[in-house]
Amino acid sequence: MRITWSLTVVVALAAGAVVAVRAQVPPRQVSLVVSGGTVVTVDPARNIYDPGAVAIDGNVIVAVGPAADIATRFRGVEQINTTGQVVIPGLINAHTHAPMVLYRGLADDLALQEWLENYIFPAEAKTVSREMVRIGTRLAALEMIQSGTTAYADMYYFEEEIGRVTKAAGLRGILGQTIIQFPVADAKTPAEALVRAEAFIKEFQHDDLIVPAVAPHAPYTNDTKTLQAARALATKYGVPLITHVAETSPEVKNSQAANRGMTPVAYLDSIGFFGPRTLANHVVWASPADIAILRARQVGVSHNPESNMKLASGIAPVPAMLSAGIAVGLGTDGAASNNDLDMFEAMRLAAFLHKLNSGDPRAIPAATALEMATINGARALGLEKQIGSLEAGKRADLISVSMAGARQTPLYNAISHLVYVSRGGDVQTTVVNGRVLMRDRKVLTLNEGSVLQEARTFADSVRAAVAPSPK
Amino acid sequence: MRITWSLTVVVALAAGAVVAVRAQVPPRQVSLVVSGGTVVTVDPARNIYDPGAVAIDGNVIVAVGPAADIATRFRGVEQINTTGQVVIPGLINAHTHAPMVLYRGLADDLALQEWLENYIFPAEAKTVSREMVRIGTRLAALEMIQSGTTAYADMYYFEEEIGRVTKAAGLRGILGQTIIQFPVADAKTPAEALVRAEAFIKEFQHDDLIVPAVAPHAPYTNDTKTLQAARALATKYGVPLITHVAETSPEVKNSQAANRGMTPVAYLDSIGFFGPRTLANHVVWASPADIAILRARQVGVSHNPESNMKLASGIAPVPAMLSAGIAVGLGTDGAASNNDLDMFEAMRLAAFLHKLNSGDPRAIPAATALEMATINGARALGLEKQIGSLEAGKRADLISVSMAGARQTPLYNAISHLVYVSRGGDVQTTVVNGRVLMRDRKVLTLNEGSVLQEARTFADSVRAAVAPSPK
Repeated sequence: MRITWSLTVVVALAAGAVVAVRAQVPPRQVSLVVSGGTVVTVDPARNIYDPGAVAIDGNVIVAVGPAADIATRFRGVEQINTTGQVVIPGLINAHTHAPMVLYRGLADDLALQEWLENYIFPAEAKTVSREMVRIGTRLAALEMIQSGTTAYADMYYFEEEIGRVTKAAGLRGILGQTIIQFPVADAKTPAEALVRAEAFIKEFQHDDLIVPAVAPHAPYTNDTKTLQAARALATKYGVPLITHVAETSPEVKNSQAANRGMTPVAYLDSIGFFGPRTLANHVVWASPADIAILRARQVGVSHNPESNMKLASGIAPVPAMLSAGIAVGLGTDGAASNNDLDMFEAMRLAAFLHKLNSGDPRAIPAATALEMATINGARALGLEKQIGSLEAGKRADLISVSMAGARQTPLYNAISHLVYVSRGGDVQTTVVNGRVLMRDRKVLTLNEGSVLQEARTFADSVRAAVAPSPK
Repeated sequence: MRITWSLTVVVALAAGAVVAVRAQVPPRQVSLVVSGGTVVTVDPARNIYDPGAVAIDGNVIVAVGPAADIATRFRGVEQINTTGQVVIPGLINAHTHAPMVLYRGLADDLALQEWLENYIFPAEAKTVSREMVRIGTRLAALEMIQSGTTAYADMYYFEEEIGRVTKAAGLRGILGQTIIQFPVADAKTPAEALVRAEAFIKEFQHDDLIVPAVAPHAPYTNDTKTLQAARALATKYGVPLITHVAETSPEVKNSQAANRGMTPVAYLDSIGFFGPRTLANHVVWASPADIAILRARQVGVSHNPESNMKLASGIAPVPAMLSAGIAVGLGTDGAASNNDLDMFEAMRLAAFLHKLNSGDPRAIPAATALEMATINGARALGLEKQIGSLEAGKRADLISVSMAGARQTPLYNAISHLVYVSRGGDVQTTVVNGRVLMRDRKVLTLNEGSVLQEARTFADSVRAAVAPSPK
C-alpha cells in the first residue's frame, strides 16, 4: 500500500494532529528503492524477504524488509524493479590483481616455473606501466561490475592508479601497494615501494570507496626487515596489511629450511607481522598449528579455489579454518591464473572442491559459499560493519541476479541457484555506495566500447613482448 | 574474392572450355555458409582457420577452410556471419538425464543416501510420468541449444518421449531406455523395460538424429540375467549400451563383496557385458586393471567432473584413461546433481580437477578438454565418423561462441578462452544436422516462454510431492 499526502496535510499533521496509524505517515523520500523478487540479506538472522525491498538514501541502506512494508514507508527518487530476480549483498572479491586481466589466456597449462619465468615475469617486466595499470584496471572494473562484484581486494603496482580508476568506476576497493624485494616497474627497492605505499595511503585514507592497504607480496619475496616495515606502516595508518601466504608446498618447505623449521605462518607470526586487519591470501598449506595462529591473531584469509586448481597449488583446509572461526572470504586471484573475475564461479568451486576433498557432500553448503563471498569476505577485510550484508545502516552495495532463464528453471531455492547455476552474466543490477553502476546490464560508469578497444590495442604490445603459449 | 557467372557462361564451360584458373569456377550454391571469426576444427590435424568458414549443404559439411577460399567456392542460401566469434564442433554431452532439470536445486548439500532416499527417489516416484518427461526434456533441450550442446547421451524413463522431443527440437540424441530391477514409472519389471527398450529401438533405429540405446541403470541395480539380456538386445540391433559404472567407492566394495572380489568393471567383463559401443558413465573408482579391461573392450567413458565433485564421489583417473587410449568424453550428469547442463563448465572443471589432482598444471590442457567435449565424446558414443569435428563429409553440427565481451578481452588464444572463460551464455549460433536451432541467441525450434512456463507449473507438483531441502 502506498499513501501519498499533500503538503498541506503533512504540515497539519506536523503541527499537532495525532497520527493513530503508522501507515498514515507519508512515505519518506529516499534516493533509491530496489523492490520485488527475493531479497537474501545475509544479515545475522539470515532473513530472506520474498518479495522484498531495500530502501537506500545516499550511500546508506535505510531499510530492508518485505516489499509491501518498504513501499508503505519509502518512496525512491530512483526505483529499480527486481521482480523475478534475487537481490543479494554485492559480492566481495577478496583477492585479485586487477590489471592482470591484460594477461588472461596469454599462457596456460604450464609448469609453474615455466609459466612465471617464460611468460608472466617477462610480460610484466616489459609491459607493466602506469598506462598498463590504468587500462587493465578499467577492463577489470568493467568485468567486475558486469558480474556482480562490488568490492575487491587488490595488490599490484602503481596502486594509486588502480585507486583512481576504481573510484571513477564507482567500485569499492581495498587496494594494496605492492612491496617486493626486487626491482619492479614502480619501485627499484622495497624502501622506495614503502615510500610509494605511504603516499598512496595518504591520497586515499579518507576516501569513501577506497581503503588503501600495504601489500608486501609474500614472505619469500621480502626480507624480515621489509616485512616488519610494511607491518609498521600499516599499523601507523590503521590500514589493512595484505600478503600471499603458503600458496604452494615448496614455499612451505623453503620457509622451514630458511627459518629454523617455521612454516610461513609461524615465521610471519614470529616477526610480529600479524597485527590488526591482516589478510592472508591462499593459505593452501596450513597446518593445524598454522590455523591456531591465524585464529589467535584474527587474520583474515582469502580462498581462491579456481586459481589453486588451475595452478595445481593444492587444497586449502577451508572447513577447518571456518570451524576455527577464521574469516575466510573468496577470491578469483588475478585473471592470468583463473582466467576471469567471476565470483559466482568462485562460490560454486568453493562448494564443489571441499565436498570432493572431504568426501562429504554436506561440506560448504550453498549458504556457506554465499556467506564467504559476502559477509565473510567483509570480515576478512575488516569491513563487516560497512558491507557484506543488506542491513539498515550499512553501505548500499547490492546486486540483483536474474532467475528467469532456462538454466534457473524451475526455482525451488534461491540460494541453491545463486551458487550452483548462476554466472556473472545473470547479474542485472549493480549498486555500490548507493550509486547504480549497472542497470539492466548496461554499465553506466564506464564506456564499454572504449574500455575493450584500449585493452585490445594494449594486448598488441603484450604479444610483441611475449609470444602467447601454444595450445 | 567472389565471382558470379551467368548461366550461359557456365553452360559454355561445361560444354568443353578449358578452365585455367580454379577461381573461375562459379561458386556452388549450398544451404548454409558460416563465415568469419576463428574456426577451430578439431580435425585430425587440429587445423584452425582464422578467419575461417564452413560450407554446409543439407545435413552435411561440404568444406571447411579459410574464409576467403570458402567464399570463392560456395554461396550459402543462408549465411551466418561469425566475425568476432569462434566456431567449433557442437559440444557433445556424453552423460545426462535430461528430464531431471525439473529437480534442479530441489535438494543439495546432503549425504548421498539422504539426498536419494528423502528427495530424489520420492520426487521421482511421485512425479515421473510421460508428461513430466516431455516437459523436462523440452526444458533441457532449450538449455542445451542455448549453451552449445548439439548432441547428448541420455538415460531415463519414457525414453521414446525424450526421442520425440529431442527430434522436434532438432538436437542429436543418443538415448537409452532405462532397465532397472525394481518397479519404476514406465516399467514394473526389467522384462517389461526390455520390451519397452526394443519398441523404442524400432521406433528410432533409422532416424537421422536419434540413436536409440539400451541403458541398464547400473550393475548394482540389475541382476546378471538382466544385464546380459540388455547386452543381447543392444547387440541384436547394433545400438549402444549405456550404464553407470563405479561411481562411488561403496559401489566397488559392494561389488567385490558380492562378486568374488570383482570390481564393477571386472564383473561386467566377466558376464560379457562389454560388447561393441558400450558407454560407461563416471568410472570414478577404476583400478589399473579396470582401465586395461576398458581399453581391451574399447569401452567409451563419460567423465562428469561437476557431478563427481558436488556429490563427493571422487576423482576419475582421466589422465590414465586417456593415456591408455580410452575414448573419454565429458558429461554434465543430470541437473539434479550439477545443477545445469553447461558443457563449457564441464570442460573447465575437467581441466581444473585433473591439474589439481595430479599436482601438475600441465594435466588436461585446454586443447584436451575441448577434444573431450567434441571428438572424444563422439568416439565414446561410436559416432566419430559422423560428428565431433568440423570436416567435409561429417554431419553439420557446430556452434559459434562470442569472444567480444570484457571476460574474453584480450584474446590471445581461442582455445584457452573456450575452456577457461567461456560459458554457455556466450554461444551465439547452434546448428545441428545443418539446421539452425539458435541464431543470435534466439532459439528457433522451441517457444522459450511456453517451455519455461510449463516447467514452472510442473514444479508446483514437485513441491507438493517433496518439500525442497532447507538451505
